[in-house]
Amino acid sequence: MKHTLSVLVENRFGVLARVAGLFARRGYNIETLAVAPTEDATISRMTIVVAGDDADLEQITKQLNKLVDVIKINDYTDVAVVERELALIKITAEPGVRGEIMQIADVFRASVVDVGERSFVLEVTGKVDKIDALTRLLEPYGIREVVRTGKIVLTRGLQPA
Amino acid sequence: MKHTLSVLVENRFGVLARVAGLFARRGYNIETLAVAPTEDATISRMTIVVAGDDADLEQITKQLNKLVDVIKINDYTDVAVVERELALIKITAEPGVRGEIMQIADVFRASVVDVGERSFVLEVTGKVDKIDALTRLLEPYGIREVVRTGKIVLTRGLQPA
Repeated sequence: MKHTLSVLVENRFGVLARVAGLFARRGYNIETLAVAPTEDATISRMTIVVAGDDADLEQITKQLNKLVDVIKINDYTDVAVVERELALIKITAEPGVRGEIMQIADVFRASVVDVGERSFVLEVTGKVDKIDALTRLLEPYGIREVVRTGKIVLTRGLQPA
Repeated sequence: MKHTLSVLVENRFGVLARVAGLFARRGYNIETLAVAPTEDATISRMTIVVAGDDADLEQITKQLNKLVDVIKINDYTDVAVVERELALIKITAEPGVRGEIMQIADVFRASVVDVGERSFVLEVTGKVDKIDALTRLLEPYGIREVVRTGKIVLTRGLQPA
């Protein structure tokens, strides 16, 4: 089962290595990870997506809590959240198929952010599934590169984070 | 000076810990980091933003190249790229100021993705500076939480990645 953890940490060197090391020692592969400072620049938020059973994740969460630089951990796996990911997708776009690609982009509310002689770069945001679906649809045209941010989440309303 | 590194790695456990450990041992704080699988699910891309002088970064790049799981490293610091970040911003939005907040959101092409009784969640993508600017403008209304993905980049046209 996939878990989404949001971990608030002190924004200083070495913290990422300690958190990543803890997952690695237990044999867990972090699938996606997004790390950036929060509204308080001394604190960063790590959004971690990792597959594992509930008992394992509980163990990991306990150990994370023991790290001195970890301030707070939330498991958003079963919580009502706004979930988003950003992707940039570069595809081969020969003149004859540009219209088709633009139509697919429109359906997914993706925007063309760079046009080359034989390529487009699309920007799209949405749930992870949506980006997976768009990528699959674009595959036949020839995907050159996909860069994704990994998922971020935010609770709805003013319920505590 | 801020550097943007794009590192292609084997998608397996422990890789992230080794890469993060290399920066930590040299005393470098990774400012933002986005990790996700690429179009080939066995390969992940890490987009790393780190401050440091050119000589230091060259050293780090050399050492990263020695890690067996690292496939390729690009330094996009001085390269023409499409640069984007995604942020979710939760702000207090009392009825009297909702119009104002919507106007600011419009200017930044941010969308309201959740509306609570007394709060909004905005979704915005753009360059890092743009998101910084929007965050500053929204501060007076009362920011509850900001979650950012960190920057991702893609080269323009069909130049090799």
